[in-house]
Amino acid sequence: MNQPSFSASLPVIRLLPKTKPQAIRHGFPWVYANELVLDRRAKSLAAGSLAVLEDAERRPMAIVAVNTHSRITARVLDRDLDAVIDQAWFEAKITRALKMRETLYDAPFYRLVHAESDGLPGVVIDRFGDTAVVQPNAAWADVMIEPLAAALAKVTGVKNILKNASGRSRSLEGLDEENGVLLGAAPDGPVPVSMNGATYLADLTGGQKTGLFFDQRPNHAFAATLSKGARVLDVFSHVGGFSLAALANGAASALAVDGSDPALELAMGGAEAMGAADRFQTRKGDAFTTLEALAAEGKTFDVVVCDPPAFAPNKQSLEAGLRAYERIARLAAPLVSEGGYLVLCSCSHAADLSKFRNASARGIGRGGRRGTLIHTGFAGPDHPLLPQLAESGYLKALFFRL
Amino acid sequence: MNQPSFSASLPVIRLLPKTKPQAIRHGFPWVYANELVLDRRAKSLAAGSLAVLEDAERRPMAIVAVNTHSRITARVLDRDLDAVIDQAWFEAKITRALKMRETLYDAPFYRLVHAESDGLPGVVIDRFGDTAVVQPNAAWADVMIEPLAAALAKVTGVKNILKNASGRSRSLEGLDEENGVLLGAAPDGPVPVSMNGATYLADLTGGQKTGLFFDQRPNHAFAATLSKGARVLDVFSHVGGFSLAALANGAASALAVDGSDPALELAMGGAEAMGAADRFQTRKGDAFTTLEALAAEGKTFDVVVCDPPAFAPNKQSLEAGLRAYERIARLAAPLVSEGGYLVLCSCSHAADLSKFRNASARGIGRGGRRGTLIHTGFAGPDHPLLPQLAESGYLKALFFRL
Repeated sequence: MNQPSFSASLPVIRLLPKTKPQAIRHGFPWVYANELVLDRRAKSLAAGSLAVLEDAERRPMAIVAVNTHSRITARVLDRDLDAVIDQAWFEAKITRALKMRETLYDAPFYRLVHAESDGLPGVVIDRFGDTAVVQPNAAWADVMIEPLAAALAKVTGVKNILKNASGRSRSLEGLDEENGVLLGAAPDGPVPVSMNGATYLADLTGGQKTGLFFDQRPNHAFAATLSKGARVLDVFSHVGGFSLAALANGAASALAVDGSDPALELAMGGAEAMGAADRFQTRKGDAFTTLEALAAEGKTFDVVVCDPPAFAPNKQSLEAGLRAYERIARLAAPLVSEGGYLVLCSCSHAADLSKFRNASARGIGRGGRRGTLIHTGFAGPDHPLLPQLAESGYLKALFFRL
Repeated sequence: MNQPSFSASLPVIRLLPKTKPQAIRHGFPWVYANELVLDRRAKSLAAGSLAVLEDAERRPMAIVAVNTHSRITARVLDRDLDAVIDQAWFEAKITRALKMRETLYDAPFYRLVHAESDGLPGVVIDRFGDTAVVQPNAAWADVMIEPLAAALAKVTGVKNILKNASGRSRSLEGLDEENGVLLGAAPDGPVPVSMNGATYLADLTGGQKTGLFFDQRPNHAFAATLSKGARVLDVFSHVGGFSLAALANGAASALAVDGSDPALELAMGGAEAMGAADRFQTRKGDAFTTLEALAAEGKTFDVVVCDPPAFAPNKQSLEAGLRAYERIARLAAPLVSEGGYLVLCSCSHAADLSKFRNASARGIGRGGRRGTLIHTGFAGPDHPLLPQLAESGYLKALFFRL
């Protein structure tokens, strides 16, 4: 006799008759609250429960994770109804994700798991050598954090696994903000990270604000190519993403501007570790004010980079956000030397490529300059996208020559 | 007394009262036939004449090149009415263009001038070491080919300058198809070109069909990163753009498929020059038929690249073109090994990124596979875009992991 399958032991959650199952069948990974039968039985499912999703005709479609406190009420974990969601299942997902990163990168510093796109909905894992930081941004991942962490250690061999619970999406899932150590120990101070020939210092326990983001890596690299021998201005520098890569590629000088002292201290620490502190300066201040001040001082730079926080994180903020992007471009353009480069970034979901490009070009024009667009970059390949969600690819970097 | 300025000696061409001058003022480089006063005097201007463009209120706006045989009737050469369009003017444009390429590339193989975006409307110049190939794709460039070639030789030091008159846009300008030698001599056989560590053979006198295109360079490079140790299939291979870069980066094997014997011979010649011929095979044939045949033979590859000609060159061909892109994806996806990569390219102006991505994802699905999008690439930075024309950025390369 066959064992009853794993999925046979799971509760069922069902699409409403009006809900077309095609999107799910074609790979869309989410089911929203208003697409599901949310009767008392469904509502009684604990946040993070596994269930079998059925269409309205009661045909089973997938194993899903359920959280009735979230607008994204079901997330597809596996379309194979014979799958068993256990440590071995996590190992298979992580092995597959790891294979791509090992193909792409020489050193173990990368986003190892990028949520839905790597088959682990809501789960983000960044790897910093021997230490991995897990963001379980969906309820099911909190519930299954133990087999997840065990699989991660087994597949990658990392010694330390930290839990980072500061992601904004956790509050949408009704989850707490408690960080923790899942394996080994938290590092004893900032961790040196090698990327594009530069050394960055990542504060893995200080949370998002002074952590390190891998998504801009290819854009750092392209800007660094333009920066050989150049005077570089890096506005919204954070821990020095663009400026340290530029210094590693032979920039004559780099000035990092940011509103955060801890971020600038880490940036300077990175420059010191690279032996490039003599070519590096930091300036604390508001970006808009500082751009105006630099213009008043008559300063020019061969490469100017502006990588602001999301000015248009959602549709409501789109118009104001686009005006802010335009203003950044208008204030930055006059600081670029003739024939120099202006790099403008947006990490706003709501501002698509075309809107962001138009706002940037308008700002450059209002700043009294003209530019050609020599390169458009996105997040690096360790941040894959589901084609169904690709429109919302949030990170855009535009490289203009003025 | 002042000399009368260069522009004062030029005829005038004027916008129609209904034509809004804003687009031109904001950097749009073209004026269409239906936006201009085309009276007998204007129509008598020889193709390629220089003129001063005035708005409907007779305010001079720019020095333009006029061709009343072309729908693009005026092209903006300079907004500075004191400019003199002579050899020194060409030298300044080429010097500026060269500076960027020398920043970007270690070796003198690149698109040196990309038409409007490099300030020389309709003029394309590719550089292959000591030899430059000029495509004067607008009438004014034919007229001014001598100071253009003299400036090119002086600024770059190239020994040979060839004129390639095979560009499709020349017929829209009413120009002939006569190739020629403007300086030095045509090379005595294919020219070796070093790119991404590979050696390509470019037949500079055989015209577009077996020439070499620089635009895919960054996409070749990214695909090569994925190809280490991989079995690579390169469909619509032309002279081996993707396959030779993959071999240079340690691909286990590469199979190039193309309909052109001369292209495949040049590809094999490149592989021989690289000492990689033992890992390289070619197969002549129709791409669709060959994809089906390879599937019937049970072949799989770790990286499959399809870089077809423009299936949707214009709006009329858009629907049929998208179906062709979908079909390519459907036939190629089953040949990709589990966890392997599928690279789909489009050089169709009419198929924008979103439409091409949707067609590709649909094709992958109909081919029985699922994929995540790990990278989106465009033409390289030696093919800059005017922001005003950036929507039409023709070249797209989508990198899927299946």
